[in-house]
Amino acid sequence: MKEAIYPGSFDPVTYGHIDVIRRAACMFDRLLVSVLDNKAKVPLFTVDERVKMLQDVTRDIENVEIGCFQGLLVDYARKQNVHIAIRGLRAVTDFEYELQIAQTNRKLSGGNLDTIFLCTSLEYAYLNSSSVKEIAYFGGDISALVPPEVAARVKEKYGDRADERPRS
Amino acid sequence: MKEAIYPGSFDPVTYGHIDVIRRAACMFDRLLVSVLDNKAKVPLFTVDERVKMLQDVTRDIENVEIGCFQGLLVDYARKQNVHIAIRGLRAVTDFEYELQIAQTNRKLSGGNLDTIFLCTSLEYAYLNSSSVKEIAYFGGDISALVPPEVAARVKEKYGDRADERPRS
Amino acid sequence: MKEAIYPGSFDPVTYGHIDVIRRAACMFDRLLVSVLDNKAKVPLFTVDERVKMLQDVTRDIENVEIGCFQGLLVDYARKQNVHIAIRGLRAVTDFEYELQIAQTNRKLSGGNLDTIFLCTSLEYAYLNSSSVKEIAYFGGDISALVPPEVAARVKEKYGDRADERPRS
Amino acid sequence: MKEAIYPGSFDPVTYGHIDVIRRAACMFDRLLVSVLDNKAKVPLFTVDERVKMLQDVTRDIENVEIGCFQGLLVDYARKQNVHIAIRGLRAVTDFEYELQIAQTNRKLSGGNLDTIFLCTSLEYAYLNSSSVKEIAYFGGDISALVPPEVAARVKEKYGDRADERPRS
Amino acid sequence: MKEAIYPGSFDPVTYGHIDVIRRAACMFDRLLVSVLDNKAKVPLFTVDERVKMLQDVTRDIENVEIGCFQGLLVDYARKQNVHIAIRGLRAVTDFEYELQIAQTNRKLSGGNLDTIFLCTSLEYAYLNSSSVKEIAYFGGDISALVPPEVAARVKEKYGDRADERPRS
Amino acid sequence: MKEAIYPGSFDPVTYGHIDVIRRAACMFDRLLVSVLDNKAKVPLFTVDERVKMLQDVTRDIENVEIGCFQGLLVDYARKQNVHIAIRGLRAVTDFEYELQIAQTNRKLSGGNLDTIFLCTSLEYAYLNSSSVKEIAYFGGDISALVPPEVAARVKEKYGDRADERPRS
Repeated sequence: MKEAIYPGSFDPVTYGHIDVIRRAACMFDRLLVSVLDNKAKVPLFTVDERVKMLQDVTRDIENVEIGCFQGLLVDYARKQNVHIAIRGLRAVTDFEYELQIAQTNRKLSGGNLDTIFLCTSLEYAYLNSSSVKEIAYFGGDISALVPPEVAARVKEKYGDRADERPRS
Repeated sequence: MKEAIYPGSFDPVTYGHIDVIRRAACMFDRLLVSVLDNKAKVPLFTVDERVKMLQDVTRDIENVEIGCFQGLLVDYARKQNVHIAIRGLRAVTDFEYELQIAQTNRKLSGGNLDTIFLCTSLEYAYLNSSSVKEIAYFGGDISALVPPEVAARVKEKYGDRADERPRS
Repeated sequence: MKEAIYPGSFDPVTYGHIDVIRRAACMFDRLLVSVLDNKAKVPLFTVDERVKMLQDVTRDIENVEIGCFQGLLVDYARKQNVHIAIRGLRAVTDFEYELQIAQTNRKLSGGNLDTIFLCTSLEYAYLNSSSVKEIAYFGGDISALVPPEVAARVKEKYGDRADERPRS
Repeated sequence: MKEAIYPGSFDPVTYGHIDVIRRAACMFDRLLVSVLDNKAKVPLFTVDERVKMLQDVTRDIENVEIGCFQGLLVDYARKQNVHIAIRGLRAVTDFEYELQIAQTNRKLSGGNLDTIFLCTSLEYAYLNSSSVKEIAYFGGDISALVPPEVAARVKEKYGDRADERPRS
Repeated sequence: MKEAIYPGSFDPVTYGHIDVIRRAACMFDRLLVSVLDNKAKVPLFTVDERVKMLQDVTRDIENVEIGCFQGLLVDYARKQNVHIAIRGLRAVTDFEYELQIAQTNRKLSGGNLDTIFLCTSLEYAYLNSSSVKEIAYFGGDISALVPPEVAARVKEKYGDRADERPRS
Repeated sequence: MKEAIYPGSFDPVTYGHIDVIRRAACMFDRLLVSVLDNKAKVPLFTVDERVKMLQDVTRDIENVEIGCFQGLLVDYARKQNVHIAIRGLRAVTDFEYELQIAQTNRKLSGGNLDTIFLCTSLEYAYLNSSSVKEIAYFGGDISALVPPEVAARVKEKYGDRADERPRS
């Protein structure tokens, strides 16, 4: 059985992530989508909330499972006994950063964790979680960027700031 | 009448920005240079100071007007009834970041805000506001980077740190 | 009146070019789309054929005019009394090449020809005339890449090679 | 069963290609390495010679098969009933070119051919078939770049030019 | 006598830095490796500790000297009467950032400080001080990334966090 | 004595090359500027003409010598007993290509030929020999791109095509 891990922050999951998940799920027997619990950043959503949203939006894809981890990806992958990591590439600057991480992970894992890259579909190439949050913060419309259930939860988070929104 | 907005932080305006302003002012009937009031960053100059400096250095260009805004550019452009945004490009890393923002703005505006790019003139390609501030902080000479009136105000800001300057 | 030139080979015009033409036509009072007659390359279509196809596909855009030129763009622009060139950007490698040409044109024209860049819409970012020709040559479907009238003429050109096509 | 195609010119196969083949063979149940018979280029080796060399150097990898094709990859993949293409990435310029081809292939195949990218291992990142040929042409040592059996055949090809070699 | 400065944070020095130091030391009569004391960042090691580690790992290279500086490189280089700066390049994003700094330094120094670039050897291209620290923080093995004496000191720094390490 | 080679086609030498030569000549005791006699390309100027033009334009720089070579740079450098190659970098696409060549040369030379890069000065960053030739071919003014004696010889070469020039 061929398995792969798709690690990320998913804060929150966007249509761009879902595109990568759907395509990678076709390529492997089992796909483990794993939320990184990065203590160095202050997320909008807790790890539990992010896991829950990922479960909601991937409910119809049979061979996808949602998990979470702390620390180094190579340690987590070894415990899960998975040897393939998946990352989406949108742009050249992504590419260089991701390449460096991929090489480091091969080195750290003694060759036991290799990374493959999928190019984000064109219609989602401009998308990232940060801009989703920034647009929502200022009251912009994010319905083309994230699924409805995610959009609703993002709005809840920013709800109490509605009065100070710079809208006319 | 064809109008365009040139948004930015302008903290402070440099010769590179002025080069873009002059060239864009030749291309459109009216150019609105707009200072972004970004609550997420601590600027060196207040929005009012930045507007004032822009007015000073563009005094001789008839069809330029200085403004400011908070929040999303697409909301501001809609209120101003302007459909063209202008951005300067210096480098490849600029390009990818700007491209992403431009695509997001087209999407968010329903196609009503398009972005055009001007390449910074070669003699200003190395210039940005951050390095102007860093050089001035350490007592370096910024007279080739910003107009005299801007250089004077930058020096005022850093004046009280003069004693701890790492000069010989 | 603000005028701009959009120069290119247009061999043949694609949906990507048409996207740039439509958007640029909104920004200026008159847009001159100009086919470069490059003696150094062997084109699929003659200059006359390329001009004709451009006229066909831009018939509904009032302020667009189709022309052609040989030699340096700066000479042609000077004769047309136009001071703005337009180029589409798809990718980083485009960007560097185009930037070099733009700087050379500013230098050669004594500052009288400036270039602005539009980013190709995402759905056309993968498109170029060369791949249209390669796909058509091998009998692939180009109906999503060029308008129907252009697709028909491309097929005509390759028609006599139909027997050697590598189709099943 | 998960299958993938690794298409290329392989003129000749290098240690960089072999690195990608070994790693991809671990990820899928069957890997089809396919030599493109590109009529537009004059190769050093015939398709048959390239297939033979690939068979030699992958003899010890069970789930690898060598093939060849003409025309569009999407047509070949459809006939082989394979939905995944593999490409190695060495550098940013590779990335943009490969991204464009990957997007075109997804479009042309109606979503039935997706591409995944592997980053070439660091020790082979500088390697390509063209520089192997250029170095061998001038009598340089290619033993670190290609397997011994390939090096021998490259030398045979250039053998009759030995007298004009610029060696001391 | 031809002298050069190799400035950097070296927090801590890695095998990548040492590769650049060794190669640059062959090119010039004297190489001054200089630790930047950047008040804007919180380092893992003090300037003294970084200088000490650099002295340890370059002990066998005769014409290398270790120093430190605050403020602008151009001021420091002028005081040291050195006219050449050396920087390592790993990737395209490095390149653009470094190019901007190099141009600014030539401008600020009136042409008296020029920068030359060495490309990091392939086996160290994925390496940087930040990832060394992140890997060590999570208990990963850094023995392939930094010399033994540096690895030991990095472990000391993170020693008191050992209990919360995400190891199995 | 520290020596370096600056290899290139120099067909013809431009102000951009001369900028690199002047700066590199300050960094080393002796600089050998070497014209590559590339049998695979049809140059505008013979090797002898290119050597002569380089001698003319570097006459005032004492420690510069002009040479020429065929074949691999590593073979030539070994015969000259020089261990440092110099290359100018203008752009990111240059960078990746040059990086690959530099890594190949280190490998082929067993570590005996290392490459350093200088960034082309901003005012010459848009310049290359090909665009000089193209502009001159069409009767454009190249006096800002190459020294007067080079401009004169380029004009001579294209003189017999003067009648077909696309000038008004």
